[in-house]
Amino acid sequence: MADFAKERNWDQFHSPRNLLLAMVGEVGELSEIFQWKGEVPKGLPDWKEDEKVHLGEELSDVLLYLVRLSDICGIDLGKAALRKVELNAIKYPASKNYGTNDDGTAEMCG
Amino acid sequence: MADFAKERNWDQFHSPRNLLLAMVGEVGELSEIFQWKGEVPKGLPDWKEDEKVHLGEELSDVLLYLVRLSDICGIDLGKAALRKVELNAIKYPASKNYGTNDDGTAEMCG
Amino acid sequence: MADFAKERNWDQFHSPRNLLLAMVGEVGELSEIFQWKGEVPKGLPDWKEDEKVHLGEELSDVLLYLVRLSDICGIDLGKAALRKVELNAIKYPASKNYGTNDDGTAEMCG
Amino acid sequence: MADFAKERNWDQFHSPRNLLLAMVGEVGELSEIFQWKGEVPKGLPDWKEDEKVHLGEELSDVLLYLVRLSDICGIDLGKAALRKVELNAIKYPASKNYGTNDDGTAEMCG
Repeated sequence: MADFAKERNWDQFHSPRNLLLAMVGEVGELSEIFQWKGEVPKGLPDWKEDEKVHLGEELSDVLLYLVRLSDICGIDLGKAALRKVELNAIKYPASKNYGTNDDGTAEMCG
Repeated sequence: MADFAKERNWDQFHSPRNLLLAMVGEVGELSEIFQWKGEVPKGLPDWKEDEKVHLGEELSDVLLYLVRLSDICGIDLGKAALRKVELNAIKYPASKNYGTNDDGTAEMCG
Repeated sequence: MADFAKERNWDQFHSPRNLLLAMVGEVGELSEIFQWKGEVPKGLPDWKEDEKVHLGEELSDVLLYLVRLSDICGIDLGKAALRKVELNAIKYPASKNYGTNDDGTAEMCG
Repeated sequence: MADFAKERNWDQFHSPRNLLLAMVGEVGELSEIFQWKGEVPKGLPDWKEDEKVHLGEELSDVLLYLVRLSDICGIDLGKAALRKVELNAIKYPASKNYGTNDDGTAEMCG
């Protein structure tokens, strides 16, 4: 993503809040895919192939801006995410959170 | 993430739209970090260490739900993202989009 | 909202993008209320009274920031919304969009 | 909004979570307007008239879905919002929150 932006001289636009709002925009596009569908089963058995391709693109757009935002902020996202998984495992030990966690949810991230 | 959920019997809660809304919730928490700061320079030079750690956690929470949502939908996020970068490079060739792209923005994802 | 901010000398913080991100934060809190619930029927028949009060607060928070954001941007939200309803009625005439609109959705806003 | 949906037989699609995701989609479109602009001054002095009209439409779309979502949930949004303003005034008394509130922000909604 850094190379992509550099080759196009886009660094000037890629401030943290610009990228954050761009990511919010992509989250909106992702939500639009699901908005009129009611509850959707896992694996999306009834979705057409082109709908799945579109979904993959919108999920990717969120990821690409998230990666770029992290980089611009000087955050090592991979390292931070692995650390967060460890913190989550400590916060919600499997032995005490089987079925639901303490607050009756399936919150993975606290 | 799949193992994490399975060990806690949380698969029952991890439907696509539940995970999507959980991700929107984390995007909200990420936005709250930036909401009163005005424009923020790259690298966050004035942020305290604990603010950066907090930021890394919220960025991670978005990533973890994004990965989990993709997996539950049967989308290979890594593969989809690499394909999307290629599509973006074709849509916005560096030679024609130096400085800004056609519509005067630095849209990476179209 | 303008009086509220003025009495506290908060105008200095209430820039358009600060308020927008604050609103995104509130949308996140609203989403958290719905995130683990699966499909929810109209009227929320199974919700406890305190959950409904909480929901009313989060809906209100989104509204308050939306009103404040509009005001700071110099947009007359009431006037704009009435105009948008008229545009939507023209775009989606009842006679041609009964059941679903042209693209098979119930998009009210285009 | 209720009449608008009824005339088109759209009630069947207007479940709480469908409307919530539709609103998130509109928040995304609103964010896209601001995403590459850097900090934007109050009143949007440099924006063209058609940009302001577009902004008014996106602000309206968020409002329309928010009103519809509240209605479908059985929440009186006007009443809830007035109550929330009163709660906010108690939580952040002007005398103690002049300049910034206790946590150094201009949080209106807690």
